[in-house]
Amino acid sequence: MSAVRVHNLSISLDGFATGDGQALDAPFGHAGERLHEWMFATRFWHEMGGGGDGAAGADHVFAARHGQGIGAEIMGAGKFGPPGWQDDPAWQGWWGDTPPFRTPVFVLTHRPRPSIEMGGGTTYHFLDAPPAEALERAREAAGGLDVRVGGGPTVVRDFLAEGLVDHLHVVQVPILLGRGVRLWDGLEALEKTYTIEAVSTPSGVTHLTFTRV
Amino acid sequence: MSAVRVHNLSISLDGFATGDGQALDAPFGHAGERLHEWMFATRFWHEMGGGGDGAAGADHVFAARHGQGIGAEIMGAGKFGPPGWQDDPAWQGWWGDTPPFRTPVFVLTHRPRPSIEMGGGTTYHFLDAPPAEALERAREAAGGLDVRVGGGPTVVRDFLAEGLVDHLHVVQVPILLGRGVRLWDGLEALEKTYTIEAVSTPSGVTHLTFTRV
Ligand SMILES: NC(=O)c1ccc[n+]([C@@H]2O[C@H](COP(=O)([O-])OP(=O)(O)OC[C@H]3O[C@@H](n4cnc5c(N)ncnc54)[C@H](OP(=O)(O)O)[C@@H]3O)[C@@H](O)[C@H]2O)c1
Ligand SMILES: NC(=O)c1ccc[n+]([C@@H]2O[C@H](COP(=O)([O-])OP(=O)(O)OC[C@H]3O[C@@H](n4cnc5c(N)ncnc54)[C@H](OP(=O)(O)O)[C@@H]3O)[C@@H](O)[C@H]2O)c1
Repeated sequence: MSAVRVHNLSISLDGFATGDGQALDAPFGHAGERLHEWMFATRFWHEMGGGGDGAAGADHVFAARHGQGIGAEIMGAGKFGPPGWQDDPAWQGWWGDTPPFRTPVFVLTHRPRPSIEMGGGTTYHFLDAPPAEALERAREAAGGLDVRVGGGPTVVRDFLAEGLVDHLHVVQVPILLGRGVRLWDGLEALEKTYTIEAVSTPSGVTHLTFTRV
Repeated sequence: MSAVRVHNLSISLDGFATGDGQALDAPFGHAGERLHEWMFATRFWHEMGGGGDGAAGADHVFAARHGQGIGAEIMGAGKFGPPGWQDDPAWQGWWGDTPPFRTPVFVLTHRPRPSIEMGGGTTYHFLDAPPAEALERAREAAGGLDVRVGGGPTVVRDFLAEGLVDHLHVVQVPILLGRGVRLWDGLEALEKTYTIEAVSTPSGVTHLTFTRV
């Protein structure tokens, strides 16, 4: 069966995957871009059209796994837009006309709307369904490829808590955010069902991989 | 001036330095010994008389910094004994007649008692004083050597929050405790005053060093 994977989920040392005060001009709240600077410096990011130097070292190797073999993404309402996007019928996500996903994307929301077909192969579907059911839908759409759970932290945590994730890649960034949304809450003893490896790289981040035993 | 250092402070991925339910038969609560298994395998631990294989690799190198150049320790009441030790006039700490500290140790407590001279150079002094004042006392006793803030997490956090720590060594262990006492609470933006390095080792832990800029 196809695997369920999380990639490039960046957290602070104190475990926050996003800051406080998310808004249209601050998608990560007071965290700003600090959770993702390690990624902006990679060739992966450069090749995605994000600019930067495009270094091809270890951070790139981890980052580039993001799209490999992925046939669909599941994301939360909190990733799809700033608080209140549900009230804006014209909101089509942060990522412009040609989003980088290039697959079906299932947006979990309690206020679903009709699907939106974007350029480059991305279609947004809006789904009010529990994790296992959403996964079933995404699996069907993924055509035998893997499903990425794309975040934010609330959705990743929910999928982990239900034992639905096969591979989790978390990138720990050496900052202390102090407030925001924590990834690890309520996941006591997660290590029992995963092999966990840690790799710190010269950029200062630590890549944690959780592979289901 | 002599430096203030923290060493071998072990935390779970979700930031807990001790578990829930500390008691006489469970000094780390439900965490058991899992936060320190990396250390039990080192030559440092072996040389301290703790048994084990005594491997001299990277974990040992970090662990052995613990006593080097230290002239006094400051610890919290929560490290000195299980909840309620203050009601037991015979309690003399977890570490027997010859504690491994071999220096003056200042135990911060709201219920101080007379000093206790132990074997091997350790004397316990009990102090009800704010961090800066306790540090002044410990510095006097350290005879020009460094002062170690030995934990637990509450005391380390308090000293960090007051900007009193020069060097912090935290060891992140790949387990999720889910509950206990967190190290990082209330330390937003700590990275601004420290250079932070991360080194993951083959045992699976990641050593984080914070060096004051
Ligand atoms: N650090 C990283 O690498 C990373 C990665 C991705 C995103 N982010 C950031 O994380 C933040 C978003 O994360 P978040 O934790 O706040 O939110 P989120 O996980 O994106 O979304 C959570 C929301 O999705 C909806 N939802 C979740 N499960 C549902 C279900 N089963 N059925 C129906 N609706 C469901 C609910 O919203 P409603 O009740 O409103 O419908 C819920 O509040 C953003 O700031 C984003 O930029 C960070
Ligand atoms: N993970 C590690 O590497 C590591 C290292 C050391 C210890 N530990 C564990 O951590 C736990 C203890 O940590 P903790 O955070 O619960 O407690 P702690 O930091 O050891 O002690 C906190 C307590 O010390 C007293 N105190 C602190 N500052 C004071 C001040 N300025 N003046 C007077 N009294 C003061 C107060 O107790 P009172 O009000 O009761 O007097 C306070 O509740 C234990 O389970 C221990 O085994 C773990």
